Amino acid sequence: MRLYRRAVDVIPGGIYGHHAPASVLPGMSPYYASRAEGAYYWDVDGRRYIDYMCGYGPNILGYGHPEVEEAAEKQRRLGDCMNHPTSVMVDLAELLVEKIDFAHWAVFGKNGSDMTTWSIQLARAYTGRKKILCIAGAYHGTDAWCTPGHAGLIEEDRQHIHTFSWNDTVGFSELFTKLRDQIAAVILTPYHHPIFADQQWGQPEFLSTIESSCREHGALLILDDIRAGFRLNVEGSHRIVGLEPDIACYCKAIANGYPLSATVGRRELKNTASKVFLTGSYWNGAVAMAAAMATLRILEREDVPSQLEVLGNTLMQGLEQLGDKHGLPLLTSGPPAAPFFRFEGDTGFRLQQRFCALLMEQGVFLHPHHNGFLCAAHTASDIAQTLHISDDMLKKLRS
Amino acid sequence: MRLYRRAVDVIPGGIYGHHAPASVLPGMSPYYASRAEGAYYWDVDGRRYIDYMCGYGPNILGYGHPEVEEAAEKQRRLGDCMNHPTSVMVDLAELLVEKIDFAHWAVFGKNGSDMTTWSIQLARAYTGRKKILCIAGAYHGTDAWCTPGHAGLIEEDRQHIHTFSWNDTVGFSELFTKLRDQIAAVILTPYHHPIFADQQWGQPEFLSTIESSCREHGALLILDDIRAGFRLNVEGSHRIVGLEPDIACYCKAIANGYPLSATVGRRELKNTASKVFLTGSYWNGAVAMAAAMATLRILEREDVPSQLEVLGNTLMQGLEQLGDKHGLPLLTSGPPAAPFFRFEGDTGFRLQQRFCALLMEQGVFLHPHHNGFLCAAHTASDIAQTLHISDDMLKKLRS
Repeated sequence: MRLYRRAVDVIPGGIYGHHAPASVLPGMSPYYASRAEGAYYWDVDGRRYIDYMCGYGPNILGYGHPEVEEAAEKQRRLGDCMNHPTSVMVDLAELLVEKIDFAHWAVFGKNGSDMTTWSIQLARAYTGRKKILCIAGAYHGTDAWCTPGHAGLIEEDRQHIHTFSWNDTVGFSELFTKLRDQIAAVILTPYHHPIFADQQWGQPEFLSTIESSCREHGALLILDDIRAGFRLNVEGSHRIVGLEPDIACYCKAIANGYPLSATVGRRELKNTASKVFLTGSYWNGAVAMAAAMATLRILEREDVPSQLEVLGNTLMQGLEQLGDKHGLPLLTSGPPAAPFFRFEGDTGFRLQQRFCALLMEQGVFLHPHHNGFLCAAHTASDIAQTLHISDDMLKKLRS
Repeated sequence: MRLYRRAVDVIPGGIYGHHAPASVLPGMSPYYASRAEGAYYWDVDGRRYIDYMCGYGPNILGYGHPEVEEAAEKQRRLGDCMNHPTSVMVDLAELLVEKIDFAHWAVFGKNGSDMTTWSIQLARAYTGRKKILCIAGAYHGTDAWCTPGHAGLIEEDRQHIHTFSWNDTVGFSELFTKLRDQIAAVILTPYHHPIFADQQWGQPEFLSTIESSCREHGALLILDDIRAGFRLNVEGSHRIVGLEPDIACYCKAIANGYPLSATVGRRELKNTASKVFLTGSYWNGAVAMAAAMATLRILEREDVPSQLEVLGNTLMQGLEQLGDKHGLPLLTSGPPAAPFFRFEGDTGFRLQQRFCALLMEQGVFLHPHHNGFLCAAHTASDIAQTLHISDDMLKKLRS
């Protein structure tokens, strides 16, 4: 708290963005991290947590994974941010094109938003149309067209952004029909992961209606796979939900925490893609790309997505059983590798906040209203310990 | 070229952004870097260059500077991208607030564009106004409101962006008077650094008119100090041009190549700043912040800006003298630490392109139409060698 008081002096709000204390558990959640290793991190007071946030996603193999660090260090000794790209950029583009079925090209950025925003521009350039359709409550980043914030926006920022509801096939079709000759793209996450609410898979009819409407009327389908990409399937999350997008955006887990984002796309878009200006001060940075090469290689070699599914299922099912045992039914949703849970009937998330605060006291960091993340460094024993602590804390919560 | 052919297969245009071969010297400039050290880099064919681009700015102390690398490595062993910020973020915010006279707070991002775009939103949120005034031909990043590209833009992106010309006090005043109650901010670079043209310092009357107009009518003055920040003065470039902005954006040289950008601002804006949503997958990343702490410490301790001014002056004056000697007058402009040069009367930059191509053949990388950069690893002997080679190449060019 001493550090937070210093921060409040020199940083607006002390901590900003999705890490802001007000958006987690003021006074209960740790505010600052001091170090991290594998599936654990330590706060500035030296308390260790089993970490179910994984840096909000980037940590997929474990913090400080030796093989990733070795690949990064090897490139670092050669050079990182230079005047030109390096061969690593070409290697990585080739790897993505090889792994991701519909992809014929790749480009790179630093933030997820860099890529979703550039994809929108690419869709507008390719189609010569303005309208973008997206899901109400979906998170696509912090740029003006999509930020969940309100301050500083002007009406023109979203004049051509239109929303529809997840799994509302009728609502989508009505909106699409009304605007169809003006639609540049529909942007979707592979499944719906709103904050403060259950995650939802797409109904097959919903997804296929969107895909066929796009194909039929020349709109592009953009997959925002930033949150879950490579965590559910090393070939992209569209493989498990049965979508074939025109463009997909990745970030988070792509380089095990090294700052990198990527967009891949279909062959037909490549020429236009070369014309939509894309650059940044550090975008040639080769270290993050070398880390991505190593990360993707390990994810595939060790079939990490399957490991995470097993671990996540154990956690989700365990929590559900404990909820039932204590008469506090817990509902879990979403992919096991990035699960969300809440207490049934717990309006305002008050029960959940108390539960998560108790878990934090016991050294388990589970976010009270954002989906969690599993990583390959989590062990069966971490999950067992988490469930053991949850058992005790649910008992305490009940009493 | 073999690598470029592979790249063209999987990356739109092969190389994109400001590094695109078409925008430098197709077939003559190196396309890919393989490694870098100090003031030199090597291309993939193993040729060494004295580097006057410095990664387009980030390299200010020399590639792989031991003290920066040590600070980064120390933090890396602790952790980089975790669930929360670290104490390093607070330390760095405190350092910026201490060094930069008008600054009372700081926030961080990854790209320069992250910060210029967020600053625009902050200005709109603070003033409740929409209009942004900027200089025609200025570069503020790649977001829709400012990108130098055209593809994918829609008219709404710039509906409230208005331009005026550098040093045109009358033009500025007319525009400002017309829109004054609607102006959220005027955004300026500390000096004008267009591409393909001389750099220009601001006339005192021009800068003071802008500053006083903003103060008088409640518009914010945003300084985009991304290109030159910390290279000309460790307290910010506004100190040498006599401006007092409300907000300033930094990137490039702040962390000697580690990906980081920053915005600082006046006290009155802090509360609003806490409300303009700002986040990113890697924005807590502590390694780049630790690198920035080390970089800023070294810049001050060794008075790097003065060193760069001496080196840059030697280069600029030397080139001018050689131009005169060979009857090919060279005009230099801008700060010596980030100089631009061109041949007098060389329309289409054809002479300059031939000159730069010849220099590249001889192991000197000087960009033919973008300002260059000096770094602290450049030695008097590097400059002497560059001038010696320039002498020979101007002779060759002349013949």
